Amino acid sequence: MNFRLCIRALGLFLMGVGALMALTLLWRIKFEDLNLVAFVWPILLSWIAGGSMFIFSGRPSGEIGRREGFVIVAMGWVLASVFGCLPFMLGEGMSFTDAFFETMSGFSTTGATVIPDVEALDPGIKFWRSLTHWLGGMGILLLFVAIFPFLGMGARKLFTSEVPGPEKEGFSPRIADTARVLWLIYTGLTVAETVLLMFGGMDLYTALCHSFGTLATGGFSTLNSSVAGFDSAFIDGVITVFMMLAGINFSLYFIAFRGRWKEALTDPELKAYLLFFVLAAGLMALDLKLHGGGQYATAGGALRYSTFQAAAILTTTGYATADFETWPSFSKGILLSLMFVGGCAGSTGGNMKVIRVLVGVRHAWQEVFRSLHPHAVLKVKVGQALDDSLVRSIIGFIGLFLTIFLFGGIALTLLTGKDVLTCFTASIASLGNIGPGFGMVGATQNYAWMPDSAKWLLCFLMLIGRLELFTVLVLFLPSFWRD
Amino acid sequence: MNFRLCIRALGLFLMGVGALMALTLLWRIKFEDLNLVAFVWPILLSWIAGGSMFIFSGRPSGEIGRREGFVIVAMGWVLASVFGCLPFMLGEGMSFTDAFFETMSGFSTTGATVIPDVEALDPGIKFWRSLTHWLGGMGILLLFVAIFPFLGMGARKLFTSEVPGPEKEGFSPRIADTARVLWLIYTGLTVAETVLLMFGGMDLYTALCHSFGTLATGGFSTLNSSVAGFDSAFIDGVITVFMMLAGINFSLYFIAFRGRWKEALTDPELKAYLLFFVLAAGLMALDLKLHGGGQYATAGGALRYSTFQAAAILTTTGYATADFETWPSFSKGILLSLMFVGGCAGSTGGNMKVIRVLVGVRHAWQEVFRSLHPHAVLKVKVGQALDDSLVRSIIGFIGLFLTIFLFGGIALTLLTGKDVLTCFTASIASLGNIGPGFGMVGATQNYAWMPDSAKWLLCFLMLIGRLELFTVLVLFLPSFWRD
Repeated sequence: MNFRLCIRALGLFLMGVGALMALTLLWRIKFEDLNLVAFVWPILLSWIAGGSMFIFSGRPSGEIGRREGFVIVAMGWVLASVFGCLPFMLGEGMSFTDAFFETMSGFSTTGATVIPDVEALDPGIKFWRSLTHWLGGMGILLLFVAIFPFLGMGARKLFTSEVPGPEKEGFSPRIADTARVLWLIYTGLTVAETVLLMFGGMDLYTALCHSFGTLATGGFSTLNSSVAGFDSAFIDGVITVFMMLAGINFSLYFIAFRGRWKEALTDPELKAYLLFFVLAAGLMALDLKLHGGGQYATAGGALRYSTFQAAAILTTTGYATADFETWPSFSKGILLSLMFVGGCAGSTGGNMKVIRVLVGVRHAWQEVFRSLHPHAVLKVKVGQALDDSLVRSIIGFIGLFLTIFLFGGIALTLLTGKDVLTCFTASIASLGNIGPGFGMVGATQNYAWMPDSAKWLLCFLMLIGRLELFTVLVLFLPSFWRD
Repeated sequence: MNFRLCIRALGLFLMGVGALMALTLLWRIKFEDLNLVAFVWPILLSWIAGGSMFIFSGRPSGEIGRREGFVIVAMGWVLASVFGCLPFMLGEGMSFTDAFFETMSGFSTTGATVIPDVEALDPGIKFWRSLTHWLGGMGILLLFVAIFPFLGMGARKLFTSEVPGPEKEGFSPRIADTARVLWLIYTGLTVAETVLLMFGGMDLYTALCHSFGTLATGGFSTLNSSVAGFDSAFIDGVITVFMMLAGINFSLYFIAFRGRWKEALTDPELKAYLLFFVLAAGLMALDLKLHGGGQYATAGGALRYSTFQAAAILTTTGYATADFETWPSFSKGILLSLMFVGGCAGSTGGNMKVIRVLVGVRHAWQEVFRSLHPHAVLKVKVGQALDDSLVRSIIGFIGLFLTIFLFGGIALTLLTGKDVLTCFTASIASLGNIGPGFGMVGATQNYAWMPDSAKWLLCFLMLIGRLELFTVLVLFLPSFWRD
């Protein structure tokens, strides 16, 4: 383990985080009451700490290897949250636990909040809160790889640790180029949504905050009542479309951009993702129309709210236009099931990912066939036949994910003493980076009531969920630290 | 597919079911008001139908192969429930749906009931209800293999389809001998528990009914309030011990009986099974003592109820000595988790089985190690290194089990419209052959309130859960029916 190399990279990274925090200060132009002090100290601290780490590491030789990659990514996300939470502490007087929770929830694109009155926040802090989503969505370390290509030498190790999904193929072999293309697509989509939301009546500030929350599949809003507060079918529609766009594998945009449209559109994961969405939204619309009453009495109303919520949960964004806690049971059952899926691999969506669910189900069904034909040579196919070791790794991921979800849920029953539905959905809402669950962490609730111990547990779940388990869990292997 | 052979075997089997029903009539000696008519017609019908099938099949040649084995076992269980439910219809005026549900719940050792007032049942019917547990527990077809060794030629196919668990090794190569030994151990344990329960104050009838429910890990009681109604620490203790004994792989008794005690006691699945039990019961006892109040105020009281309930849910028996719905949240979280484990392979316990959970978790954790050492050659070890194809089959089983559980839960939200906790725990309580869940299917509730459609769905879940999925699901493969 080349510790000095890790410290140098983390020092650079921390200075970068400080620079990104400084972006927030630009809003002073619009908001004269913006709390400068809340940002000046954190920015300075990031630079001093990051600079010291950079200098004291000397000039380490060697490249970033597999192990260093794991350490840099895992520690980088923790450091970003430690320093990124300082504005919440200085500006809003939040405790370290609450501020760290909010920041980790932001970077991990979970969108769970401990702030009951979001609207009362300082505009700078509110913007930083949404910006953490956007930075975390595509991978904050990847951003630096895109900007500073000299990091590129070991960047593939960072890339595979930070970008969601089991496969990272189909990109340019030069990782810095790939990172730049990904961030370009991501920025382009964000700009497009911002413009559309401004057409819908939002000001630039609000539109940007919500675009950050959408494209990152995060879920922080500037309103206490989330997107429901705008009460606009147009805005609901725009956000629904962009949530779905954010949940698509970004390499497909890349492929389509190069003119290979057909290839992109026939991607089996994309088809399954759209099928899940159409099925869930369609069935919920029917259920809402028949049993929902009130605003769901018309087919249009039922569809508007069902499509929005299906997209919000499937993509793990977690925005809400309705209190789905009051929905009929079938719709709640569907939403609960969507809480175990997620976006496509290589998207900003969290959770297990569509491809893993597909592989898991096909692998399982294959065993039925095998019990009849025990000597058949079978391969799991998703588009093409998958390598056995890839299938094994995916199945292992699912097993680990569900085990951690279960232990998270049990631990929450102990730490909070609340009902099992609240505790187990809080566990998946954090591990899957969704945000809202059911019960006391439902669409109109927040996480402020939780004891600190539970908040720290959820922070850990958000982190390992966002970094797809292995990146963090390998650090707990004794053999990781032996040379 | 040799249909005539299947029909012949099923005809024989059905006559056997009729003979077993006739056993109930012996209780006429004690209960003069026992309803004879409720049994005479079903017995006659079984013999007539079974006899007709036997005769009309001619004298088919050939042996029972893999496919015939699947058909005979799956259809045998359905037929046994169709004819076994007739006494409930004739004697108690229950609908076909309710009677079938109760019988399938009995044979599959689920123990979920649709009868609100069990104590008002005719003594013969109540006995038959408990007897279905006992027959289903060790495998009703296996019983016939034990009694009629001439069936033995194709019996291995029946055996592997009906006995729970992924491995069926370590037994005598002659399957009829094995079946006889299994049924002997099973009977011996049943007699032992019956005697002990009679020491605790029960009469023979009640003791026998509860021993059937215990050894089969079923859960039907003769009291509305289940085992709680006896309010005896001695009875609670005896049943706890025998539930745990019933959840142990019966081949270990066989091994121990042959003097290889050490080998039996160091079985890795047994150790994990006991560890789960001790951990769950211990943690719940602590939680009950601290947050339970009332009858749990003493350490003894807390342990008495926590050990009983941990054993009842882990082994999938489903008896209750307390309304665990009112327990503190942590205890409920632990019970909920135990609902996804089950007994050991080769025991009468249902659900996924300890060995599968062990393999699943070890396989998953191995992927963490592999992400650090991608070229390492790793084998999943449970005692010894397991064959890759066995691991794959076990993982496939878990995936299929969880998928079916999920769809079962969603379907129940649609069919019943009740809360998700009720619906999803009803799904696992049936698929895992446990009996009680949470909410409206909790320890003091029953399934009478459910609409017929939901009851039929649960019957299907109970059946495929008891027959470990594949036996039933292969029948849905198109290639199963092609020659």
